[in-house]
Formats: sequence, structure tokens, C-alpha cells
Amino acid sequence: MAGSLLTVLCTEVKGDQSIQRADVLAVEQPLEIRLVSGPAELRSTKTVSVTMRTPGQDEALATGFLITEGIISDVERIASTTLIEQADGSVVLLELQPETVVDLQRADRNFYTTSSCGVCGKTSIEAVMHAGGIVSSELKMQASVIKKMPDSLRQAQPLFEKTGGLHASGMFTPDGVIQLVCEDVGRHNALDKLIGTALRSGLTFERHAVALSGRISFELVQKAVVAGIPVLVAVGAPSSLAVQLADKANVTLCGFAGNERFNIYTHPERILF
Amino acid sequence: MAGSLLTVLCTEVKGDQSIQRADVLAVEQPLEIRLVSGPAELRSTKTVSVTMRTPGQDEALATGFLITEGIISDVERIASTTLIEQADGSVVLLELQPETVVDLQRADRNFYTTSSCGVCGKTSIEAVMHAGGIVSSELKMQASVIKKMPDSLRQAQPLFEKTGGLHASGMFTPDGVIQLVCEDVGRHNALDKLIGTALRSGLTFERHAVALSGRISFELVQKAVVAGIPVLVAVGAPSSLAVQLADKANVTLCGFAGNERFNIYTHPERILF
Repeated sequence: MAGSLLTVLCTEVKGDQSIQRADVLAVEQPLEIRLVSGPAELRSTKTVSVTMRTPGQDEALATGFLITEGIISDVERIASTTLIEQADGSVVLLELQPETVVDLQRADRNFYTTSSCGVCGKTSIEAVMHAGGIVSSELKMQASVIKKMPDSLRQAQPLFEKTGGLHASGMFTPDGVIQLVCEDVGRHNALDKLIGTALRSGLTFERHAVALSGRISFELVQKAVVAGIPVLVAVGAPSSLAVQLADKANVTLCGFAGNERFNIYTHPERILF
Repeated sequence: MAGSLLTVLCTEVKGDQSIQRADVLAVEQPLEIRLVSGPAELRSTKTVSVTMRTPGQDEALATGFLITEGIISDVERIASTTLIEQADGSVVLLELQPETVVDLQRADRNFYTTSSCGVCGKTSIEAVMHAGGIVSSELKMQASVIKKMPDSLRQAQPLFEKTGGLHASGMFTPDGVIQLVCEDVGRHNALDKLIGTALRSGLTFERHAVALSGRISFELVQKAVVAGIPVLVAVGAPSSLAVQLADKANVTLCGFAGNERFNIYTHPERILF
């Protein structure tokens, strides 16, 4: 089984101190679900989904997905499941009983992802992993400013207090002044709203940081890279792939921000002490 | 603007007390993003996405989505945006400049959703809203058992403590004994893994409850309905549409579970005091 955890080196900032230490991340990696179906003499293979998941229980994930998305009606329709592990992601091959009726139109419509929505519909692992772009920005920010961003974000969330159920994203100046804030039930929507609002107002992110209320996945970093966001600060944990992409794309990624502390996972040269 | 908040009646259980009170939910509703593009004499309209979002800043969401998903390269390509509000969801019509090059293949591959992944690829609001099914189960559970489920779930999560970044789903007997637990960076994956593991072992959910570590969206309830889960207990907040679907599908939906308390949003008749 591919590993579910990845140990990386990060810089932990706590009060006025910063130390280098190991941190354990949840692995995020693509899983491709392929169906083998059709009558005995005319079998065909079709990718029904690429989902970003944590390795482990992959056959169960593929089975549950087929059932809960209505692609097959019951588990007895599955003749065999085979897990094929590759370096940059895995494939589950689900062979259906020859007489099985598959709602392939439903499968077609269900190009799908879960933790990392927005990679939906990409039918191969390569397509998912194609992020592209390097964020070039001379922005530097004080560690003391980063520490205050999550509190400022929360205070600027008009709806959260009422529901406890909304994610937020906020755009900050280098001095930590919040310029825009957007809320949504979906983390990805909150970031798309922020990027859309900024662009519609003629603002760019070159000299700005963005704070996010939740955990940070590959796809949020991907959106940040496209928008040219140099510093990304999340209240929650980053996934392994989020850190790997941020590193490659020259994005400074901070996690677990709040309560006078945060971790720097990539490009600490933008953070001043 | 369609409302971002919805007030509902819930039963709050706290210690040995239960009271009826109002609760404010974040609204979750489909937004369809339609592109009008092509040369002046040959304009065509295409739905590029249906996303489950909280109403508000919809034009910004649609704009940010087109940019961050690489469908158009810059915001000047958008000639106009029009928001059309409907009872069960809204539509943003984005008219592009006639000479705009659209990566429609990319759009095709990006049938997409964010907060409620898995409705991906459904190209109309009706398709998203088509959930279907009623969960019939005679299961009853003691309130005291529900209160303990989040703690049991957390204790059974082998990976969470190490990363702080993994969602979990757990299958419980009516007495609150945890039978299966699955973890993933994605909430939807954690639930698909649980359902897949159960079905592959010949277990059904008719006499079981399921606990989830995060917030609960429409699509998680949709998966629960397909799997026939009668009692769904979440540590976080439910969305408006999650409550509406649970109500219709005869699912008992509890939220904000933990610390000796929880709220019952739908079908409280399954909970005993």
C-alpha cells in the first residue's frame, strides 16, 4: 500500500521563536477508477473518475463510489477489483459481471473528485497533476503579520458566527490589512469568489497574501498559482500534494495559523523575523 | 440576492435536557455557470459547471472559476455577466468577447463542483437536485449514545492525531459500538470508503448509524440515502440543503455533535430520551 502519511521538514513559528522540525502530513494523491464492463465477447474499459484521496482502502473507495453515485446498483455486480500502484497515483480496475447494466451516462456525468474538487473530469492522472506556472513576486511579510491573519479573517466573516458552517478566504496587504473577504460552504468557492472579486476590481495578487479558513489541498494551491498568489496562509493542515505543488510553484505555504503560531512549509524566504 | 442564511427549527440536546430552538444554517444551493461564446455571427451557449455554493458574489464566483480553471486566460475576455435567480438555484450567464479563445475541451473536462463534489458533471440544476429514495428503517437510538459517537470516532482514527488533517467516517451499532472507521483527506472519500468497506463485507446500514468528522453537505446526505443510512451524526454544521434532503429522505440528521451535546435537525422520532 502506498503510504498514507508523509514526513516533511517545516519551520514552526511560535511567539518570537522559530525552529525547524519534522511534521507529518496526510498524503493526497490521485486515484483513477476504471470500469471493465460489457458482454463477454465485447469487454471495454472506461475511466469513470479521478479522485484526490489518501491512499488506503482504495478498493473500498472505488466500490463505494460506484454505488453511491448510482453507476451500479449493487455490490454483487463487481466480479473483481485490482489495485495497480504507480509512482504518482494509483488505479483501481473494477471488473463487472458480464451481464451488468452500467449507467454509463451517469458515469460520464460523474467525472468527479472529492477532497480536491476542480480536478473533476480529468480522465487521467497526468491531467490532474498538470498544474503549471511559477509565481514570481518580491513580496516579503513579517511573521508577526502572518500570525494575526486568521483572527482578522474570522472577525471579517459576516456570516460565520451565525452558522458555524462557512469557509472564508481573505486578501491581505503586506501590512496585514484585510482588503476583501468572501464566504461559502465550499472552500474552493470561497477562493474562487475572492479571486473573481479581486480581478473584477482590477486588483492583482502580486503584492498580497491570502488566508483560508480550512485545510489546504492540492487544488486550492493550484487555484492560487493560476491567480499568482505568492503567500498562502491556512488555519488548518496542508496535504502532502499541496506542499509539493507550492514548493514547485514558488508559493510560500503556511499552515496551522492562529493562536500566535504557524508553520511554514515552503519558501520561507518571504517571511521576515 | 437569494439569501445566504436559512433559519430552521431544531432540537438541541444538552446534557439531559432537550429544547426546541431556532438555528441558522448556511444556505447551499446550485449555481449553473453558462458561457456565451463564439464569433459574432455564430454565438453559442454552453453550461460549463454546476457548483453547490452559498448564494452571494455569484458573478465573482463564476469569474474566478473561469480563470482558475484555465477556461479563459484573463478577466477582460468577459463582456458581461448576468445573474438569473430561480427558485431552486441560480444561473450566471457570462458573455465573452467575440474573439475570445475558450478552452472548451478544458471546460468539458471541468464539469465541476466544489463544496458538494460528486454532483460534478451534471449539467443542469434539475440533475443535481435529483436525489431520490427514502430510507426506511425502524432504528431507534438513545440520545446518550449519539453524544458519545464523536469521541469514539476520534479515538478510532489512527492517522488523524499525527496530521490534524484527515476526515473520518464511522459505522456504529445502535448501542454505540464502532464497527468500521475510514479516513481520508476528503470527507466524501471517507464516506465512500466506509460504504464500500461495509458492502464488501456483506454489512448493510439498516440498523446502523454513521458519524462524520466535519460539516455535512447535500452530497454527503445524498450518498447516505443511496446507502440506506438512517441516522447521520456530524461533528460540524449541516448546510440548508443537507437538512432539506434528509427531511425528505427520512434520514435523522444530527449536527454539532460532541461535548455532551448535539442538535437534531430532522426526524427526531428515531432518538430516544
